[in-house]
Amino acid sequence: MKALTIWLTGLPCSGKTTLANLLFRSLLEQGVTNVEVLDGDVVRTHLSKGLGFSRADRDTNILRIGWVCQVLTKHGVCSIVAAVSPFRAGRNDVRAMVEKAGGPGSFVEVWVRCGVEECIRRDVKGMYAKALRGEIQQFTGVSDPYEEPLDAEVVVDTSTESPSKSVSRILEVVNRVTQ
Amino acid sequence: MKALTIWLTGLPCSGKTTLANLLFRSLLEQGVTNVEVLDGDVVRTHLSKGLGFSRADRDTNILRIGWVCQVLTKHGVCSIVAAVSPFRAGRNDVRAMVEKAGGPGSFVEVWVRCGVEECIRRDVKGMYAKALRGEIQQFTGVSDPYEEPLDAEVVVDTSTESPSKSVSRILEVVNRVTQ
Repeated sequence: MKALTIWLTGLPCSGKTTLANLLFRSLLEQGVTNVEVLDGDVVRTHLSKGLGFSRADRDTNILRIGWVCQVLTKHGVCSIVAAVSPFRAGRNDVRAMVEKAGGPGSFVEVWVRCGVEECIRRDVKGMYAKALRGEIQQFTGVSDPYEEPLDAEVVVDTSTESPSKSVSRILEVVNRVTQ
Repeated sequence: MKALTIWLTGLPCSGKTTLANLLFRSLLEQGVTNVEVLDGDVVRTHLSKGLGFSRADRDTNILRIGWVCQVLTKHGVCSIVAAVSPFRAGRNDVRAMVEKAGGPGSFVEVWVRCGVEECIRRDVKGMYAKALRGEIQQFTGVSDPYEEPLDAEVVVDTSTESPSKSVSRILEVVNRVTQ
């Protein structure tokens, strides 16, 4: 498959990692092996240990992931990224870097939309609870902003559609742009 | 070409970047296009801004580069790294990561050997002069240790041999391990 970056952005617990892993499996099943999943939490360990959650640190984290994506894209490897990436400017910077390496259509932004109430209900790691009690500062959706995408290639709504439905809608777009 | 990482380690001004760029060009001339140069200085900008030169920060920097190398190796892309990487343990950690991704023979350590007197004479960016005047702390070769490789796959001596001679000796080993 033509190299591209599928960038999943959304609130914590919106379902980004779930979709990233399902997308990865679906692509493997289609025989696509030039794919790497870059999960925000994992990447924080390897690339961004020591960075916090200030605006500047968040931007740095996103740019580092983006830098890896553009290297991979340049060499024909697809990246699937799951990262809150709350700021429009940061996402756009990454888009520019990747498209510079892979050409137009090589960056597919997916807004993983889910209302904050539903995210709080899921609260997989109990982070929202801590944020709501004020034990974590600068938590996106509670005490830090999330800038909704204006021009995402795909918007999926994980509070109303099944993960497999979301994945098939994302793959439709991916298959179209990589034709 | 089978993916591998060519890791050039040595003192500042020993000639790592020169050799990395020459290696890159030679491989391109051989028709090998799945190659990426990761130069220590460039990587510090994209992956390791904010890190200093303490032992811990140096190790973190090297591990980040190594993490990128193993992702690239895994997907069939060769990396050429030019980084002082003064500590044996850090280099061995990277070797383990890359070989885990690419199998035995996928990590070629090249010791770019050059006496510190000759490096001081070259002093491309005037950094040795500053370090000798005490204006830079923890400068490898002056006020910070360089642990010489014990089992490098290749040792080149840039004070006695020409860059093209060094490159051809490195490529000999590379071609042997990628057969």
